Amino acid sequence: MRLPPTLTTLMTLLKRLPGVGQRTAERYAFVLLQWNEEQLQQLAHSLQSLRRSLTTCSLCGALSEHASCTICLDPQRDRRFLCVVAQPRDIFAFEETRSFHGTYHVLGGVLSPLSQKTPESLRIATLKERVQSQGIQEVILALDTTLEGDATSLFLKRELEGLGCHVSRLAFGLPMGSSLEYVDGGTLSRALSGRQQWI
Amino acid sequence: MRLPPTLTTLMTLLKRLPGVGQRTAERYAFVLLQWNEEQLQQLAHSLQSLRRSLTTCSLCGALSEHASCTICLDPQRDRRFLCVVAQPRDIFAFEETRSFHGTYHVLGGVLSPLSQKTPESLRIATLKERVQSQGIQEVILALDTTLEGDATSLFLKRELEGLGCHVSRLAFGLPMGSSLEYVDGGTLSRALSGRQQWI
Repeated sequence: MRLPPTLTTLMTLLKRLPGVGQRTAERYAFVLLQWNEEQLQQLAHSLQSLRRSLTTCSLCGALSEHASCTICLDPQRDRRFLCVVAQPRDIFAFEETRSFHGTYHVLGGVLSPLSQKTPESLRIATLKERVQSQGIQEVILALDTTLEGDATSLFLKRELEGLGCHVSRLAFGLPMGSSLEYVDGGTLSRALSGRQQWI
Repeated sequence: MRLPPTLTTLMTLLKRLPGVGQRTAERYAFVLLQWNEEQLQQLAHSLQSLRRSLTTCSLCGALSEHASCTICLDPQRDRRFLCVVAQPRDIFAFEETRSFHGTYHVLGGVLSPLSQKTPESLRIATLKERVQSQGIQEVILALDTTLEGDATSLFLKRELEGLGCHVSRLAFGLPMGSSLEYVDGGTLSRALSGRQQWI
């Protein structure tokens, strides 16, 4: 006896989720089978409404339920500081820290020729427009510290040169609570070269 | 800025899946956001049809798309051997091994007074009926080797006494490919007491 087609179809779909293989998909499918009708309907409706009820902010590109996001509409935000992130979800990570009060700009990815991510496909033109028209003083590049993220940061730095704004990057160094024993050499050498005088 | 309600609702639902916490639910939700409309609809429909298109076999209790499962309908199956499992999914595990050609009986759980699993709530009466009416020679108890599984096995053994069938359990011992170094004491002692003469 094989698994019924209803289950295998569901498993095939679940396997598209990150980190979900055959085993996990099977586990999820059998648990979903134990949910009652109402719970299954809730999840189904939630999935169906996902794309309909969420859009991106026309200015910054953040996830939003309206044409402008709450950050872009907030008069308390310090518009002199603009934080450039790759994905909408990165904004939530910064907001959780409650330590940034400027505004954001979502690039929509990082440069990656192999995945058809060219400068034209990212929101770089709108970034330059915002910097020029809104009198932004500092652009903070907050991209991944991967090869592609670093290349994109460098590209943006050159694009923004001459537009009259400072360009900065997030600091490199030891993660909080880390033990020197487990920190990789690259991080350690960046932490050393970026050392700060303790006053 | 907080996560939009559309996303948090979805995350709350996803967190009901086994092993899915806040982080994983967030990861899944953001990936689902990148799926296209068609893929989301497929998953939604699959969830909606899950309970409607799957039922349990009226005889053995296995998952089935019809009133009788393919195993109970199969004339090739050896009806002298009946394997008792706790959950419908256990049947698929046995079927994958291709080493059992008898039929199955799903109990629907193991005895557990705290979770309201009493002898009456399990399919024990139908098991006894089958044993008596179908001339079954051997009932193989294939329940988890947990405290509750063992208690259920013992309970079933006593219930089946006098019905004219042999009652057996799965063998205890070393898992295949295991290293003695990592095998727990309980397993090792059962493997020793259950040792077999090598002829």
